[in-house]
Amino acid sequence: MEKPYVIGIDMGGTGTKFGIVDTKGNILGQGSIPTPEYPEIQDYIDALYEGLLPLIEEVGGVSQIKGIGIGAPNGNYYTSSIEFAPNLPWKGVVPLGNLLKAKFQLPAVVTNDANAAAIGEMTYGVARGMKNFIIITLGTGVGSGIVINGDLVYGHDGFAGELGHTTIRRTNGRLCGCGKKGCLETYASATGVARTAREIIETSKEDSTLRSLDIEKITSKDVYEAAIKGDKVAKEIFQFTGNLLGEAFADFVAFSAPEAIVLFGGLAQAGDLIMKPIKDGLDNNVLPIWRGKIKVLPSNLKASDAAILGASALGWEGKE
Amino acid sequence: MEKPYVIGIDMGGTGTKFGIVDTKGNILGQGSIPTPEYPEIQDYIDALYEGLLPLIEEVGGVSQIKGIGIGAPNGNYYTSSIEFAPNLPWKGVVPLGNLLKAKFQLPAVVTNDANAAAIGEMTYGVARGMKNFIIITLGTGVGSGIVINGDLVYGHDGFAGELGHTTIRRTNGRLCGCGKKGCLETYASATGVARTAREIIETSKEDSTLRSLDIEKITSKDVYEAAIKGDKVAKEIFQFTGNLLGEAFADFVAFSAPEAIVLFGGLAQAGDLIMKPIKDGLDNNVLPIWRGKIKVLPSNLKASDAAILGASALGWEGKE
Repeated sequence: MEKPYVIGIDMGGTGTKFGIVDTKGNILGQGSIPTPEYPEIQDYIDALYEGLLPLIEEVGGVSQIKGIGIGAPNGNYYTSSIEFAPNLPWKGVVPLGNLLKAKFQLPAVVTNDANAAAIGEMTYGVARGMKNFIIITLGTGVGSGIVINGDLVYGHDGFAGELGHTTIRRTNGRLCGCGKKGCLETYASATGVARTAREIIETSKEDSTLRSLDIEKITSKDVYEAAIKGDKVAKEIFQFTGNLLGEAFADFVAFSAPEAIVLFGGLAQAGDLIMKPIKDGLDNNVLPIWRGKIKVLPSNLKASDAAILGASALGWEGKE
Repeated sequence: MEKPYVIGIDMGGTGTKFGIVDTKGNILGQGSIPTPEYPEIQDYIDALYEGLLPLIEEVGGVSQIKGIGIGAPNGNYYTSSIEFAPNLPWKGVVPLGNLLKAKFQLPAVVTNDANAAAIGEMTYGVARGMKNFIIITLGTGVGSGIVINGDLVYGHDGFAGELGHTTIRRTNGRLCGCGKKGCLETYASATGVARTAREIIETSKEDSTLRSLDIEKITSKDVYEAAIKGDKVAKEIFQFTGNLLGEAFADFVAFSAPEAIVLFGGLAQAGDLIMKPIKDGLDNNVLPIWRGKIKVLPSNLKASDAAILGASALGWEGKE
């Protein structure tokens, strides 16, 4: 008989969430551990095991588990390793898949966090039934997962889908953590939006409730709350960010002609305030054949659920 | 027994080339007709039939032919139509596949010309054995064919791979025939290179043999011939065009992480004069994980052969 459960693990720079998932996508039990508190990878694996063991016992023991799927920053599907992840405690190449297999005695499949979110959307979210879509994750960084003909795109080396590091400003572009200038991530990530807020506040004379906040700590949530109250500066921040995202999306459409682009993360929840400038930016920059035809959709999954569910879907692959 | 031959047709704005191809990729007979001389599509189909009939008879008649593959500007694999092709005599949507089927009584598969070239490279050229690569066709326009996991990318609607219309200059970009500004095509196409030549000649005081030519008619061949003789202006034209192509390629790499980018068309034959600035532009704009790792290769197929061979490969699909 097919084993009825999988384990999904969503590793992030600040926290790692995990859960047991059934074939219908129900999360039967979940927990979390703080990623940076384990500077030794083996201690991290041991902590994961201790966190998961009671959940595994609850569903009838390890014999009931088909496999483990894990989404991790810089996770590589082909090698099952994390490779040179700037925001994790472990340096160089970490053989994450093998360490999990050894500890849990279960098959383990690794991918990056944005790819896991894409699988989550395709299996349980707004991209259900779609064969061609792109997910853009707007968080501390900007990640992406690309689905073509129903399959995740991993590329020749397993690192495909780094759309946060495509260049959206070639002149006077902002310096990115990757060393390049003008990357999409420097504008559309949480820190990018905060940076835009600071720039607009400093260069405009418009009154704004955002001026009362610590200018170094403005979040996209602050901007959202000001914008829905009609704050002009806040609206301008969304306008700028949305248009720029739309411009970037136009080039992504020219590449893979997706049915939809799905937005995941806090910024995506700002409704028309962000969606309208995105759609305008997109339509003003795509070829006529695509104008008005590409859906831009906010994710409808709870952020934590999507990542666990997406990662867990890899668990069914049961790659040994 | 499997039928031993296919027909490959390469439709271009000025001429259409066709041939009979065997399973090993030998072109057994070929011919051509001038595309613009048939303002009625049915006359064009009839002329193709007349041109191909003696070749078909020579290999033993239509019973020996498995199918027809055709690469055409704006050709859509899903609908087997040409749709709104700006450089062809027929307007709107032309049901090319059905017209060919009706005339030849053979299955016919349509794709765009760059996709056909990609299939040609994958089957018989420098991309043999590669599962992930991108072909960029540098001609009157700039086209592209994207191969991921061994399959051509058609996208949701069949129009994927319009990389010539990604935006490479967002400020003061050149006006493109598509209506957008700053498209890669406005810089890297034959007319784009000629335009760069005119701009550099007009703004520089450097001596150049190019100054003796009609400034409106300079071709990339003229530029090549001047450059190999050491002409500084000609070298600067290649430097500018190559760097800009490399910048564009960096974003393509972030999308699909290909093993190689294959260049097809006249400009690709300029050797290190164009290849070096392309590689520099690429390496200066990709994430560190890809620096120095992505191959940039000139096509090694004869231009006319590649397109016929690529189109013919679709003939084996024998889609009814």
